[in-house]
Amino acid sequence: MVECGWWLFGNTSSPNACNSLSGFTTTIPLEVIVADVKQSFVEDYIWPAIQMGLVYEERYLLGTSLARPCISVALMEAARQCGAKYLAHGATGKGNDQVRFELSAYALKPDLKIIAPWRDVEFCRQFQGRQDLIAYAQRHDIEVSAKPATPWSTDANILHISYESGILEDPNTVAPDSLYEMTVDPLTKAPQDPVRLVIHFERGLPTSVEDFASSRVYTKPLEMLEFLNQLGGSYGIGRIDIVENRYVGLKSRGVYETPGGTILYAAHQDLEVFALDREVLRTKQVLRNRMADYVYNGFWFSPEAVYARRCIELAEQRVSGKVTMELAPGYCRAIARKSAEEVGALYNEQLVSMDVHGGYVPQDAGGFIAINAVRIREHVRAFGPYEVPNPDK
Amino acid sequence: MVECGWWLFGNTSSPNACNSLSGFTTTIPLEVIVADVKQSFVEDYIWPAIQMGLVYEERYLLGTSLARPCISVALMEAARQCGAKYLAHGATGKGNDQVRFELSAYALKPDLKIIAPWRDVEFCRQFQGRQDLIAYAQRHDIEVSAKPATPWSTDANILHISYESGILEDPNTVAPDSLYEMTVDPLTKAPQDPVRLVIHFERGLPTSVEDFASSRVYTKPLEMLEFLNQLGGSYGIGRIDIVENRYVGLKSRGVYETPGGTILYAAHQDLEVFALDREVLRTKQVLRNRMADYVYNGFWFSPEAVYARRCIELAEQRVSGKVTMELAPGYCRAIARKSAEEVGALYNEQLVSMDVHGGYVPQDAGGFIAINAVRIREHVRAFGPYEVPNPDK
Amino acid sequence: MVECGWWLFGNTSSPNACNSLSGFTTTIPLEVIVADVKQSFVEDYIWPAIQMGLVYEERYLLGTSLARPCISVALMEAARQCGAKYLAHGATGKGNDQVRFELSAYALKPDLKIIAPWRDVEFCRQFQGRQDLIAYAQRHDIEVSAKPATPWSTDANILHISYESGILEDPNTVAPDSLYEMTVDPLTKAPQDPVRLVIHFERGLPTSVEDFASSRVYTKPLEMLEFLNQLGGSYGIGRIDIVENRYVGLKSRGVYETPGGTILYAAHQDLEVFALDREVLRTKQVLRNRMADYVYNGFWFSPEAVYARRCIELAEQRVSGKVTMELAPGYCRAIARKSAEEVGALYNEQLVSMDVHGGYVPQDAGGFIAINAVRIREHVRAFGPYEVPNPDK
Amino acid sequence: MVECGWWLFGNTSSPNACNSLSGFTTTIPLEVIVADVKQSFVEDYIWPAIQMGLVYEERYLLGTSLARPCISVALMEAARQCGAKYLAHGATGKGNDQVRFELSAYALKPDLKIIAPWRDVEFCRQFQGRQDLIAYAQRHDIEVSAKPATPWSTDANILHISYESGILEDPNTVAPDSLYEMTVDPLTKAPQDPVRLVIHFERGLPTSVEDFASSRVYTKPLEMLEFLNQLGGSYGIGRIDIVENRYVGLKSRGVYETPGGTILYAAHQDLEVFALDREVLRTKQVLRNRMADYVYNGFWFSPEAVYARRCIELAEQRVSGKVTMELAPGYCRAIARKSAEEVGALYNEQLVSMDVHGGYVPQDAGGFIAINAVRIREHVRAFGPYEVPNPDK
Repeated sequence: MVECGWWLFGNTSSPNACNSLSGFTTTIPLEVIVADVKQSFVEDYIWPAIQMGLVYEERYLLGTSLARPCISVALMEAARQCGAKYLAHGATGKGNDQVRFELSAYALKPDLKIIAPWRDVEFCRQFQGRQDLIAYAQRHDIEVSAKPATPWSTDANILHISYESGILEDPNTVAPDSLYEMTVDPLTKAPQDPVRLVIHFERGLPTSVEDFASSRVYTKPLEMLEFLNQLGGSYGIGRIDIVENRYVGLKSRGVYETPGGTILYAAHQDLEVFALDREVLRTKQVLRNRMADYVYNGFWFSPEAVYARRCIELAEQRVSGKVTMELAPGYCRAIARKSAEEVGALYNEQLVSMDVHGGYVPQDAGGFIAINAVRIREHVRAFGPYEVPNPDK
Repeated sequence: MVECGWWLFGNTSSPNACNSLSGFTTTIPLEVIVADVKQSFVEDYIWPAIQMGLVYEERYLLGTSLARPCISVALMEAARQCGAKYLAHGATGKGNDQVRFELSAYALKPDLKIIAPWRDVEFCRQFQGRQDLIAYAQRHDIEVSAKPATPWSTDANILHISYESGILEDPNTVAPDSLYEMTVDPLTKAPQDPVRLVIHFERGLPTSVEDFASSRVYTKPLEMLEFLNQLGGSYGIGRIDIVENRYVGLKSRGVYETPGGTILYAAHQDLEVFALDREVLRTKQVLRNRMADYVYNGFWFSPEAVYARRCIELAEQRVSGKVTMELAPGYCRAIARKSAEEVGALYNEQLVSMDVHGGYVPQDAGGFIAINAVRIREHVRAFGPYEVPNPDK
Repeated sequence: MVECGWWLFGNTSSPNACNSLSGFTTTIPLEVIVADVKQSFVEDYIWPAIQMGLVYEERYLLGTSLARPCISVALMEAARQCGAKYLAHGATGKGNDQVRFELSAYALKPDLKIIAPWRDVEFCRQFQGRQDLIAYAQRHDIEVSAKPATPWSTDANILHISYESGILEDPNTVAPDSLYEMTVDPLTKAPQDPVRLVIHFERGLPTSVEDFASSRVYTKPLEMLEFLNQLGGSYGIGRIDIVENRYVGLKSRGVYETPGGTILYAAHQDLEVFALDREVLRTKQVLRNRMADYVYNGFWFSPEAVYARRCIELAEQRVSGKVTMELAPGYCRAIARKSAEEVGALYNEQLVSMDVHGGYVPQDAGGFIAINAVRIREHVRAFGPYEVPNPDK
Repeated sequence: MVECGWWLFGNTSSPNACNSLSGFTTTIPLEVIVADVKQSFVEDYIWPAIQMGLVYEERYLLGTSLARPCISVALMEAARQCGAKYLAHGATGKGNDQVRFELSAYALKPDLKIIAPWRDVEFCRQFQGRQDLIAYAQRHDIEVSAKPATPWSTDANILHISYESGILEDPNTVAPDSLYEMTVDPLTKAPQDPVRLVIHFERGLPTSVEDFASSRVYTKPLEMLEFLNQLGGSYGIGRIDIVENRYVGLKSRGVYETPGGTILYAAHQDLEVFALDREVLRTKQVLRNRMADYVYNGFWFSPEAVYARRCIELAEQRVSGKVTMELAPGYCRAIARKSAEEVGALYNEQLVSMDVHGGYVPQDAGGFIAINAVRIREHVRAFGPYEVPNPDK
């Protein structure tokens, strides 16, 4: 299985390992460490991402990007155990993952040396690309998950599966239905009836999911995500097909499915706008947009990401409450929300009601508007009328 | 019909008109001008909004906000015809519409005087809110569309219908299914099979919609929107339920349906990320976010909105091509996209391909990462290791 | 003395006080509370402003804006002592101060009622403006500091003096030399020789000023500011003459002198760029610019200002060290800086040295540049050459 | 003279030239092209920079950064004449200039190959840094301007001179007075009396400088800058001493003198705030800050810089008028300003006057404040009182 994305060499202190690796004829006694970091991934990366509301270029929920720092921490722990000085990985020279793995590695172990066969001149001469490598693997009876029959590349973890390359490289080719693994076809395989869930948040972090159908409540992050993945997946929720901008300057096409994450993101977004002061929300979103770029680009461990995250966490102190989500075939949406009992709430039903004037002097609004109009009118005085379209077309 | 939201008094030069209006016992000979501004609304407000990618607080497509400057232009044209000096409107003192109508009016006719009964002290004493007014209308046999039986307020135009107030004021009450007028229930009334459309854009503006099912092509903005509204509505597309931040400082709950606009927004967004350089896109989105606030707050005619719009239009010069949209019950999504033949395209299939190294030196990426790591490592040197979560939970 | 800017009525519960006040013939037994809040002003408002690097429209150090929330806190404390329900102030209806005082008051005591004679219809009818009021005062033997002989208005506190109105209203009239009170004429009255100071900061806050000339060290905030005001004033440092944008939509011309604040601002700015990571600095400056607008506009006590301030304080945790400032007639500048011994420092003399390659692989830079060039070259491929000026003019 | 910073090889098509170059023992018949691009530098780079208000990290006027794209255009023109395929330059591997030259070159001639000896492994082994190279030059009788006696490096052009490296690498060492070449010591060598100039701008670009002392008016960009450099230099204006953040991730200390540019920047800034609508100014400054980073980092020719520049130029259409500048020993400042007669002006003396109420209803301000207070009070209602410092310290 070469799909795992990285190799760690514990017993070597020489970059020559790279050369032998390139030909897969290594005689190094390989010690394989397989660490289960799912819980840390959910609690330390996915939960904060939901809390921060991270989304890249307005659609991608960063399923792969978030996994990279988590894997890197586990790698460095393994490196520590083995006394390793080198990190080898199979990320290509055109992608984001090389940046994410290596920046994380440099952050965690600044003196580490990186071995990246896909950027090695000799390796690249031998293998023009993924197809050559698949062919090589077949010739040498090495089992790999990317087969010519499924001519795309996948990256899967508990948050999402991404699909790219191969036939997907033409952005005008529709992705085949057979591609999706985490979600069913919403139109033919999903339940006919919608279902409602209540998701609770404290300080922006999901704390429980109430499933009325089964009368069950999930409170552990990993359980919550697994439940939402299973249920969201059964409704075909969370598929997107996009072209995105990579950090290395290319545009690439990706298809993603993120069932549980999509539900959590939508619920959190609803509660956040409900709970936060308008201007605090504006500032938080500026920080969020920056943080999404940091994470996508591989800077999870960086001065700027540490800083942005702490600032966003400050804002999220007010985001406590619950959201009712409706899941339907192919989509979900927030349909009701409520503040946590024990905290205050900016939403003021009495104040906003059109049935009473209570607590508010309507006459003030006229002055508010008049003063706001000062600049608008001054512009006319100074520079003449605004350009106005002809209303009678 | 009081629902129209505004009155214009042509033959009066005295604000006392307000007092008589308050009691609806006016004997002023009313001249009613009903202007059909749908085409201008689509071409001069909705199309630019799609081009700019306007969305308020990440979900609301500004259906009401965009109509206000359009109506105001028609009002001022009517005012010019009648020699009117006053503008009276029925917007309440707690809402956004008063701001939008009045700022637009001040921009277009800086010396206009505003009469706003809902901010009039005497009027407010008599009518505590919408319910009192409905009761008054019933007592006096005045027909109004807002009835106790449908206890919410609506604002409808060719882009959307909004629902708020009444039973919707409790943000934790789910909106009843019977509320929606522009979209059917996606789960019970929509077609079972999805449908695909191709939407073409030039410089960010929709130029045609190809409907394969009917082999028809729509090329006039108004026709395009009407077709998308009808088709999107039949699939139940474009419903949202949100709490939003009003400009006057309140939070309010709104339910919106925007079938055609939702399809156009999604198609444009897909093409834009596909077509624009990453950093141009970042700057454009900053301007877009500002513009969305300007439009929501009523500043369509303002120095800042004129400026932001021109800047965004500059970016959109590159956004030409077509997007294939899939419509399914309750949602739509982009599934393929292509640049217009006659313009260049930043997406570079050859460059991004994982099957060739062509046009790119993979070795460079190592240096790119190493230099990006300088700050990350310097932070460790200066201040010690990054805080790292325990991976073995 | 009417110049103080506010009156507080402790023993009245009726807004009719306003009317009698308008005529200055009040028989209300006035209790005058004069609170010395200089120390709080320095420690709780000026020091944080220096720490945050606040500057409005790139030049104004917010001397008046910062005083308003400080005064308001003292006012509310007096109001509490007296059981007052009303706040009356003499700020005009065109200025920023009315907004700042009243927003602060509403924040601190949301049920307070405001009495603003300059916005009172009857008062405004009687007094067209400041000149009428000065004339009235003269007729009634009321001593005021604004005299026809010094035909401008001043606002003075321990941070700055501002001058505006009167002859300054023509922005093309040069302010007379006789205007300045806090600073001497740098060209004729300042010492000929420059002087050097060392200013120490901890977490962005000034902690001490070393004066080598007198071998004295100042460590209390109030003392430090008084010393810097005296010394900076003797060098004529900190004069600016600007037109600024008021929150109420007007542009106004102001002349300001801020001797000590100018020195502190310049020293802090130098240390901050020295100490902070580049990207953290970028984010911090976005927050700083927002905060400067909040403070100028009167929102010191607001959700957004509380939030921005906490975020900026997080960044400032790294800003510890000392800066050597040179004071010369009319200006000052940073000429040397050093990190505090006990904290780390991002500046890396070894790394940046042109005399060694140490700790850095120059070859990496080539890859860094090549990858950064990807987007730049793709733009040419897609859209043709960049427009290039003719170099041989 | 090796100081020029670049070599261009016209007659070679082999990168081996690099090796011979490394030893300076080349036998390639060198053809030297010295192009005078001062006029283009002023008109096509400096003037736009003044128009855009570019400043890096709030102090550095980008004197070196702006020169790089200008030189690159001339280089590419020479390359075209010679049919050159390689660009060699002497910029080091730690600096910004390598990035600026190479990104510009890639933009202008995407297929160009770069030869950078300071990043060549063999070259770097032979020369550890600048001192080694100076020693080498001395041994081989090659004249270089950087001498051990002036142990720093300079970059000079018509906009500025920068000094860095050598003894300046310790940021706590004060730069010696003998360092400055473009400005005299303001305290001992400048005229005692201040002088006033009037600088005119059209659409943000300087169009003339009126010198009252000599009754001369300068109208050609190059003449204007030369005059301001001479006069500003004679007053010792425009010296800064900073630590800045390089694009490659290092912090470096630089001392700069920019006499004419400092005067132009200050004059433009004054006029811009005077002329622009407040909110347009806010957006323009966001774009300006981005553009300053682009230019500093070497992205003058890039999609994002082309875009930002066009947007800023749109805003500058309103920035026409004149500013009176006072030059004094060591500093300059704006003291008066006026709009161009033929364009409108947002500054409204009548409106802002404290001596009349004209054109403005003061009562409106109360409503403006009250509505702005809604969020501030709601915060208290929901979450309790703001934290308030004790005023009686």
